[in-house]
Amino acid sequence: MNQEAFQDLYKDEYSVCYGCGRLNSQGLQIKSYWDGDESVCSFTPEPHHTAIEGYVYGGLIASVIDCHGTGTAAAAAFHAAGRPMGTDPDFRFVTASLQVDYLRPTPIDAPMELRGKIEEIKGRKIAVSITLRSKGEICARGKVIAVQLPDKLRQPGR
Amino acid sequence: MNQEAFQDLYKDEYSVCYGCGRLNSQGLQIKSYWDGDESVCSFTPEPHHTAIEGYVYGGLIASVIDCHGTGTAAAAAFHAAGRPMGTDPDFRFVTASLQVDYLRPTPIDAPMELRGKIEEIKGRKIAVSITLRSKGEICARGKVIAVQLPDKLRQPGR
Repeated sequence: MNQEAFQDLYKDEYSVCYGCGRLNSQGLQIKSYWDGDESVCSFTPEPHHTAIEGYVYGGLIASVIDCHGTGTAAAAAFHAAGRPMGTDPDFRFVTASLQVDYLRPTPIDAPMELRGKIEEIKGRKIAVSITLRSKGEICARGKVIAVQLPDKLRQPGR
Repeated sequence: MNQEAFQDLYKDEYSVCYGCGRLNSQGLQIKSYWDGDESVCSFTPEPHHTAIEGYVYGGLIASVIDCHGTGTAAAAAFHAAGRPMGTDPDFRFVTASLQVDYLRPTPIDAPMELRGKIEEIKGRKIAVSITLRSKGEICARGKVIAVQLPDKLRQPGR
């Protein structure tokens, strides 16, 4: 894709997340991009990410939805501010709540394709809805309420 | 604890879960037990399970809540049937929906202590509410709607 991933534009000090931090070498390294008004993420599960044989573990699905949601929220905040992602002052979101409905088992032998949509931007809070498809079928739906990282959690030097 | 973990009583063919399968050597190996009417689980995050420095990744929290919820549901189904866990016919639950509210950041340098409570048993569906504490403070609350594994997903031979 001819764009940098949202997560690759996070500041170094916010890039250690197990789900999406480019500096967490043991993490999942989830990447999200814009596709028009929607955000997209493709993630290929590893064979050990299994729930029961042949299907993806629900906790992994929740994890990918979570980071795709907070990434989409950050990108949307920059967009709303009329600034390129990564410019100062920084926007970084954390998850206030996560809802996942598992509609059918997600096959483990295919990429999971996620699409995110901004539902609401209200002060420091952004709601993102996410649809997860695999092999063309909707397997899960998620909703992430993301909030801007509270100042007290900002890393030293920021 | 002087009990076998719920997950250690799952049949081999349902013990490959990344979150709680004893046969998944790369997984989290979550373990749940009864403590009176509540189920308990203690999980110590690894240093790479970080969100931002010092705090636990929300996807890991969702994962532990997920498996503790389905494990509690299975144990409750055996209890309701008046049979020891692991006897035939087997009960194994999967997640229909997962809700997590992140109330405060969860410190990464301490075990996460989860307590589960059965909210409702209705047909093949069991609702479990879960509270996650770390260092004595409630950091997250979760709700898992667990459903008995559909027959079409039963592994060959079961």
